[in-house]
Amino acid sequence: MPSPVFHLIAALVSPENQRAVQFPLTLLLVFGSAKLFANLCEAINLPGLVGEILAGILLGPSVLNWVHPDAVFNALAQLGVMFLLFRVGLEVKASDFMRVGRTAFLVAVAGVALPFLSGWACMQLAGASRIEAIFVGAALVATSVGITAQVLAAKGLLHQRASQIILAAAVIDDVLGLLVLALVSSMAVGRVNVAGLATTAALAGGFTLLVAKYGTSTLQQVIPRVERRLSVAERQFHLALVLLFALALLATYVGVAAIVGAFLAGMALSESVEKRVHELSHGIGELLVPFFLVSIGLHLDLAVFASRSTLILSTVILIAAVLSKFIGCALGSWTLGRVDMLRVGVGMIPRGEVGMVVAQLGLSLGVINKSIYAAVVFMAVGTTLVAPPLLSRVYRDCPREEPEVIAATTS
Amino acid sequence: MPSPVFHLIAALVSPENQRAVQFPLTLLLVFGSAKLFANLCEAINLPGLVGEILAGILLGPSVLNWVHPDAVFNALAQLGVMFLLFRVGLEVKASDFMRVGRTAFLVAVAGVALPFLSGWACMQLAGASRIEAIFVGAALVATSVGITAQVLAAKGLLHQRASQIILAAAVIDDVLGLLVLALVSSMAVGRVNVAGLATTAALAGGFTLLVAKYGTSTLQQVIPRVERRLSVAERQFHLALVLLFALALLATYVGVAAIVGAFLAGMALSESVEKRVHELSHGIGELLVPFFLVSIGLHLDLAVFASRSTLILSTVILIAAVLSKFIGCALGSWTLGRVDMLRVGVGMIPRGEVGMVVAQLGLSLGVINKSIYAAVVFMAVGTTLVAPPLLSRVYRDCPREEPEVIAATTS
Repeated sequence: MPSPVFHLIAALVSPENQRAVQFPLTLLLVFGSAKLFANLCEAINLPGLVGEILAGILLGPSVLNWVHPDAVFNALAQLGVMFLLFRVGLEVKASDFMRVGRTAFLVAVAGVALPFLSGWACMQLAGASRIEAIFVGAALVATSVGITAQVLAAKGLLHQRASQIILAAAVIDDVLGLLVLALVSSMAVGRVNVAGLATTAALAGGFTLLVAKYGTSTLQQVIPRVERRLSVAERQFHLALVLLFALALLATYVGVAAIVGAFLAGMALSESVEKRVHELSHGIGELLVPFFLVSIGLHLDLAVFASRSTLILSTVILIAAVLSKFIGCALGSWTLGRVDMLRVGVGMIPRGEVGMVVAQLGLSLGVINKSIYAAVVFMAVGTTLVAPPLLSRVYRDCPREEPEVIAATTS
Repeated sequence: MPSPVFHLIAALVSPENQRAVQFPLTLLLVFGSAKLFANLCEAINLPGLVGEILAGILLGPSVLNWVHPDAVFNALAQLGVMFLLFRVGLEVKASDFMRVGRTAFLVAVAGVALPFLSGWACMQLAGASRIEAIFVGAALVATSVGITAQVLAAKGLLHQRASQIILAAAVIDDVLGLLVLALVSSMAVGRVNVAGLATTAALAGGFTLLVAKYGTSTLQQVIPRVERRLSVAERQFHLALVLLFALALLATYVGVAAIVGAFLAGMALSESVEKRVHELSHGIGELLVPFFLVSIGLHLDLAVFASRSTLILSTVILIAAVLSKFIGCALGSWTLGRVDMLRVGVGMIPRGEVGMVVAQLGLSLGVINKSIYAAVVFMAVGTTLVAPPLLSRVYRDCPREEPEVIAATTS
């Protein structure tokens, strides 16, 4: 993965050693610089994870070009975001989650509709084709809840009403985003399969609802029985990991993100497992979450700034993405009053890797060009950098809860 | 990685979904079956990690052929064994380690000489060429301490005198193994570079000795200072991970295994960090160590049993590997009395991945053939399966210490 640094060291070592050196070198570069920049950001009162994303930009193609995301790096990043959402799920009770369902649904729908329309409108005004406009609209749809979850968890704010609504809305948002994506990609290839779309909707929605509704009670019956036979907390942890991987697999199988499965697994377990299971998961998150955050930064190619038109397009799309999601989600939660409207609106802003996936699909289908792709990636990274400081601000007056096990990565 | 199961499921999902499904599917297959077999083995009073290696054999090419070790899988396995040795290092005081140095050195030297000679003699008697005999001898040299460390840690036996000697001897053994490997590979390509060998010896020995001797006192001065500024246990954990990756990198750079660096990092930190750092590392190990154990099993190709001559060769080499290491190491620790001699001898038996690396090198240099390669891999996996039950037996009369944080994976 790393290139100049690697070649410098590689020149000193024997050839059969190079492969052995590369893996720990990447681990050190990524983890070390992520934590260094997290500390620097915290020193100037910015959330630590902003520093970790910046470390990714620094290590990436635009600046140092030391780390290239290969299969191994991407797997660590994916495992990282899965454990991030799993840890967050462990802190959320399914009953609370279901209680906020109605408001969360409104937030998700408004937070999908407005960004889609704004993305589509921006591109139409810029003179892009109909399919380009639709793809950019779709890329603006799905919130990537990892960033917000990490900020809220680190500050011990997961149990606030607004936080619960953000988490629930993000899960619903992911299902809606899946449908939008299925719709626009079938439009791009020229045939819209209504029956297929309906199946996708039913599978994804059914899976989510079923696990959210019955997961907790099922596990409350299963876990104590197993415990009686096996006794130690590690066994609970092993079962928890098996459930995590199983639900992540099922989630990807029905078409939603693996992290939705990871979150649901955590939530289903939240009322059955010992506190030590949280702590053990926390250790894994501490190792792997930086890989997820760095991977976001790595995707950004600052070469977009080289062309004036791409720069303008990127800036406009970023502003549209931030405002449309903020306004849509705030409006969706109007029953909660001004303070929580602001929190929900800001919390849903980050798009992260989900927007990038849509853009990559558009690029591979040949319906959007490289400059639009770069603009969407810029938007995705930009929203993850904008949201954390805003979140700190809108949650400012919140009493910090008892320090959570989950806290601290990037407090 | 997985094949028939994967294709079955893949047939049901859309093509763009296949890649997303594959990763959680592999995680579930590997982790789930490892833990299932660990529990089955424990039910019949075998150490759990024997079950995890057996799960690897089952998932591998010989039986189900569901999981193929690719770059991602190998990276998880490598990270797993690094964290395994790191956790073990955290339980070992450098001062204790240095105190047993003399005996450990004798154990390591005798445990390198005897296996080399026995491997060489077996092949000479079987009518193999001189270079083939030398390579098989070299493949029998290096102990892979991961298996023994895991058994001892799980049983809370790391602080026993024999355990300390096994760990110290395994580190020295790794340095000696490196020298043997450097020597035989230079013989294979026809030129022995004495200056190069001396440099390798000096670098590897110097690195190990330096970190073992000064690492603890240096960190005892550094860690409390940093702590005062940063306060939380997570920060200590981040520093610990940075040190772990840095020493793993340095270790591979000077030519010894990354796990030696990981072990030394843990040992250097053992007297400075809070107990919570152990717990967080433990969580990572619980996730990743099964990948290491399964990867050992995955390498075994039972096709060796198809040819009668390969089967005989494999069996003879396995017996030679077990006996020569046992006798060599037991003799090296003769000052300790019968009980500890048995423990040290048995504890050094597993060869695991180190023997496989030597065999792979020989295969790639064209100096050994596929049948000898298969026999060496059979020996490597066989020794990891033989040692754990024997260890349980020779440590039987040992009072189990207070349950350690590190315990439990495979108790």
